[in-house]
Amino acid sequence: MSSLLVDDIGELVTNDLGGEDGPLGIRRDVALLVEDGRVAWIGPSRDAPAADRHLDARGAAVLPGFVDSHAHLVFAGDRAAEFAARMAGQPYTGGGIRTTVGATRAAGDDELRATVRRLRGEALRQGTTTMEIKSGYGLTVADEARSLRIAAEVSEETTFLGAHVVPAEYADRPDDYVGLVCGPMLAAAAPHARWIDVFCERGAFDVDHARAILACGQAVGLGVRVHANQLGPGPGVQLGVELGAASVDHCTHLTDADVDALASAGETWVSGFVPTTVATLLPGAEFSTRSPYPDARRLLDAGVTVALATDCNPGSSYTSSMPFCVALAVREMRMTPAEAVWAATAGGARALRRDDIGWLGVGARADLMILDAPSHLHLAYRPGVPLIRQVLRNGVLQ
Amino acid sequence: MSSLLVDDIGELVTNDLGGEDGPLGIRRDVALLVEDGRVAWIGPSRDAPAADRHLDARGAAVLPGFVDSHAHLVFAGDRAAEFAARMAGQPYTGGGIRTTVGATRAAGDDELRATVRRLRGEALRQGTTTMEIKSGYGLTVADEARSLRIAAEVSEETTFLGAHVVPAEYADRPDDYVGLVCGPMLAAAAPHARWIDVFCERGAFDVDHARAILACGQAVGLGVRVHANQLGPGPGVQLGVELGAASVDHCTHLTDADVDALASAGETWVSGFVPTTVATLLPGAEFSTRSPYPDARRLLDAGVTVALATDCNPGSSYTSSMPFCVALAVREMRMTPAEAVWAATAGGARALRRDDIGWLGVGARADLMILDAPSHLHLAYRPGVPLIRQVLRNGVLQ
Ligand SMILES: [Zn+2]
Ligand SMILES: [Zn+2]
Repeated sequence: MSSLLVDDIGELVTNDLGGEDGPLGIRRDVALLVEDGRVAWIGPSRDAPAADRHLDARGAAVLPGFVDSHAHLVFAGDRAAEFAARMAGQPYTGGGIRTTVGATRAAGDDELRATVRRLRGEALRQGTTTMEIKSGYGLTVADEARSLRIAAEVSEETTFLGAHVVPAEYADRPDDYVGLVCGPMLAAAAPHARWIDVFCERGAFDVDHARAILACGQAVGLGVRVHANQLGPGPGVQLGVELGAASVDHCTHLTDADVDALASAGETWVSGFVPTTVATLLPGAEFSTRSPYPDARRLLDAGVTVALATDCNPGSSYTSSMPFCVALAVREMRMTPAEAVWAATAGGARALRRDDIGWLGVGARADLMILDAPSHLHLAYRPGVPLIRQVLRNGVLQ
Repeated sequence: MSSLLVDDIGELVTNDLGGEDGPLGIRRDVALLVEDGRVAWIGPSRDAPAADRHLDARGAAVLPGFVDSHAHLVFAGDRAAEFAARMAGQPYTGGGIRTTVGATRAAGDDELRATVRRLRGEALRQGTTTMEIKSGYGLTVADEARSLRIAAEVSEETTFLGAHVVPAEYADRPDDYVGLVCGPMLAAAAPHARWIDVFCERGAFDVDHARAILACGQAVGLGVRVHANQLGPGPGVQLGVELGAASVDHCTHLTDADVDALASAGETWVSGFVPTTVATLLPGAEFSTRSPYPDARRLLDAGVTVALATDCNPGSSYTSSMPFCVALAVREMRMTPAEAVWAATAGGARALRRDDIGWLGVGARADLMILDAPSHLHLAYRPGVPLIRQVLRNGVLQ
């Protein structure tokens, strides 16, 4: 068992309330010992135990790796032309999803695998040590199953999103498609998935269909997530809370009742480490569809647990950059830099019901990044700049 | 003399009207030969002349290197805490410049040099092959001269900005400070500078002072640039046009008369390659000060030449990322991706009155970047993602 000492850390974000100040549990001028892929010790450099290897963090900020809890990486083709048209004034309706479905079905496994790995690698270089990956561009039994099989090669956090949109061939009989999703498609997908998700939105799935699909997934042991309230107000958020979803994602259009439901979700779904229904905000989607941003302050001020994720997908948010999402959260959603960094790390972990990642204390997984900057503030203060110098995943330098 | 063939280019942005379509002069499926630091040939790969070395662009987009015509890299310290306070609601007034002046004066040459080189390197890795660098945080004869000396070590495009703000010790006698700037400070600065610039804004320099300082600079052969109309309407833009400035920068608050002046500037200042007064927009500053963006469409529709630049500085825009500025220009200022890419390359070159950079045709400097993407569209379509795979500067792989 080899050990690694990350030495001379200027600012360590622990997300651990044992830390010195604020929600980030910041500790200054410390070293961190990694053993067996876990954090084994944190303390002043002068007290550090012997280690096989050293990594000099030279006054830099060290943070838990980003936990990107919402990404759609299994697809073929791109929609750059649709993006350019939208920027010239065409609204985003979600209708372009079917374009990607066609390209994805036509692609070979190797092409899909290459795209997933390229994007996963791109995200890793930007500090993302955990990345949820959804299916949802196959929409046949075989294409959803292979999408998840390929996703599972690079992530433990895979999500069955057969209910992304009703495919064209079922346009006139959505009930039949829901039957397919709950029946053979779920059966083929479930062995490769940890989660089930539904796009509950006008033009996609209504609340009854969404509830039925999510309940089928729960019945076979999948955890629940919901695409909710992105394009307009709707029942998605409250459905998610009702079903004990780990996360409801987008949350762009919320009523007071939605916020209240989220704020009290923790009380209903208490167990191990107080799971709640997290509100996962995806500002990359609002950026790339030129839409109004979710009201993060309203959620935070109501006590809702907030996560940030990329929504990386070729239609509405083709960014893999969590630092970019942090910068947007601060500029556009008035989150403080500390709130945004917490949401992109600890918040993402909660949205995936994970207690081993998203923080850095003894026992946590040694998933972390060393910044080319002295403080976590620089992620928002230096927007667009690649600031991730080094990444450790499971204690291994990437 | 060694030659290099960039081969199998999917999309070549030439910014040359000899190209196939649009203002970007895009050519598809071509190769580009570099000899002696210049573009020597462009054509179909199958017709390519022999070359000593090959660089495989494998279907990727190749663009002229970014020309960042507005950056303040010579400083010490950072203002991350001021940034965080501003994001929590404190307005930006420009007053924090004096904080950086204090830190810069106290810093040794090596510290300043290290910061300049770090930021210049960071920008280069993001595709910036030409970067203007201003003084303006010294504000003494010795500190302005050394700022420019250090800037000139890494850039031919150096700008004397002794008139950035009136330093505290001259707060009650700005006329005396203007005298210092026009006298001994200019004399010490001019040997290391190509340009002179003034921050013409309420709280900085009024129009009479600005005109006097710029005229002194012109008299010793420096070209004129102006920080104008950033925080409110003002005389800066029209002053710049009056003096034949290469660029007026910020242009956030413009009257119809300002736009008219810019639109007709080309007629007044015709010579070699039709120099005009470029409107250089700096959306990173609006992003990081949470201010309204300039109205790029109004300028473009009036026929004004528009450039994009970072304004990289520790107070109001600590980004060095031209791709980020392109993405903001599209999202926030309704420039098309093509307009934004043109403004960040050819526009920047015009703002520096350079005809050897900002385009890729036979005879141009071989300053270019190969993207990890098939199209220039991806710079806006994939915001925050580091997409610059390789950079050539003067034909040399960086
Ligand atoms: Zn999504
Ligand atoms: Zn400036």
